[in-house]
Amino acid sequence: MVSSSGTQHKTSASGGRQSTVNKKAEKREIAKRKILNATLNLIADEGLSSLSHRNIAKAAGVQLAMTTYYFQTFDNLLLSAFHLFLENLQPVLAELGENQKTLMRECVNRDGVLVEKEAYITGIGDLFEAYFDSALESRRRQLTIESQFMFAQFLPDVLAREVQQYTATLKKVAEQFCAPLSNHHLKTDGALLLAVVQYLEFSAVGSAPSDRREGREMVERLLRGFLRS
Amino acid sequence: MVSSSGTQHKTSASGGRQSTVNKKAEKREIAKRKILNATLNLIADEGLSSLSHRNIAKAAGVQLAMTTYYFQTFDNLLLSAFHLFLENLQPVLAELGENQKTLMRECVNRDGVLVEKEAYITGIGDLFEAYFDSALESRRRQLTIESQFMFAQFLPDVLAREVQQYTATLKKVAEQFCAPLSNHHLKTDGALLLAVVQYLEFSAVGSAPSDRREGREMVERLLRGFLRS
Repeated sequence: MVSSSGTQHKTSASGGRQSTVNKKAEKREIAKRKILNATLNLIADEGLSSLSHRNIAKAAGVQLAMTTYYFQTFDNLLLSAFHLFLENLQPVLAELGENQKTLMRECVNRDGVLVEKEAYITGIGDLFEAYFDSALESRRRQLTIESQFMFAQFLPDVLAREVQQYTATLKKVAEQFCAPLSNHHLKTDGALLLAVVQYLEFSAVGSAPSDRREGREMVERLLRGFLRS
Repeated sequence: MVSSSGTQHKTSASGGRQSTVNKKAEKREIAKRKILNATLNLIADEGLSSLSHRNIAKAAGVQLAMTTYYFQTFDNLLLSAFHLFLENLQPVLAELGENQKTLMRECVNRDGVLVEKEAYITGIGDLFEAYFDSALESRRRQLTIESQFMFAQFLPDVLAREVQQYTATLKKVAEQFCAPLSNHHLKTDGALLLAVVQYLEFSAVGSAPSDRREGREMVERLLRGFLRS
């Protein structure tokens, strides 16, 4: 990404030229963003395997040469599209994390010990039921893209590594949810919660969706199982 | 499917004509099978969204008109391809079911009550570790196709219903595994086991695979949780 913040304090003598440079950089950013959004839209609508320089340029409404001009290689373009996907995802993860913290505060005693375990589990059930109910509509496109990246078979190495890193990040978020319940198996429990939630998410945008009530029961039952060991 | 068994006891008078009819039916079956296999291969390699009469005919090595001649509509062709996928899957499900029954016999007392609960859980852990280890290689193509059907967004209604039915069948198999451990939550537990195993399966052919040790631990930990309630 080209940052424009470094150009704020230039002397007025170079101001005119600088403004042209800024405009160029801005135009460049807009074009790149257009191409990346078109790429994500194509992944959502037709899958990763549908991508080509040609149909990306067409969908973005830019000349064919532009995808190579801005991103050099196809792998590079795909990697940048994944980064944009991650950027768009940040608010969702932040909100989930915040909700968990709020719930925790309601369920701990003065010493910060989780005393209301049943309330905590039901609270997480509520949280995910609400999430499966509403957020899934708004996240449909995002989840379709995510499942494409997750289950793609032949990603370029560098992108496959980033998808793995992304999964590791999600596991950390899941561990945050499990931490008040799991003593000795936090890694496994985080992996399990992530597996179940991600499965429910992907199913929700697929052809055999679970109903939200079932999803909620699955999450609560899973967490209760953690509690007892 | 055209069955040839009904033509075995014809009189010799009509034998010559019958043999021509049989040959025609056989040829027809071979051509249909070729088209369906080509369809599944395309789904495995390039995804459901890549399919068209044109590239299926090309991959099958038949004339363009043949896909319509044999299957009438595109939805019909897709449905038949799904049926072939299900047919290919039967031995895998049958083997899993058999292994579970064998394990059960080793863990019950004379009255058929599961007494060796820990051995049963570890046994299922073994079973899935072996499965994730070896079967996944041989099932890679099948799992890629399965994930395409599961997470496809815009399947024809009749196919979406069959995918849902297929998921219901898998849930029954998963319930069979959980039954000796789960008393009051069999439906939820079966759904959870299916979610976790299918997630691990799809991940295994995707870009962020779990290691087999982690998969095994997840399955065992899940089952132990069921035990305690």
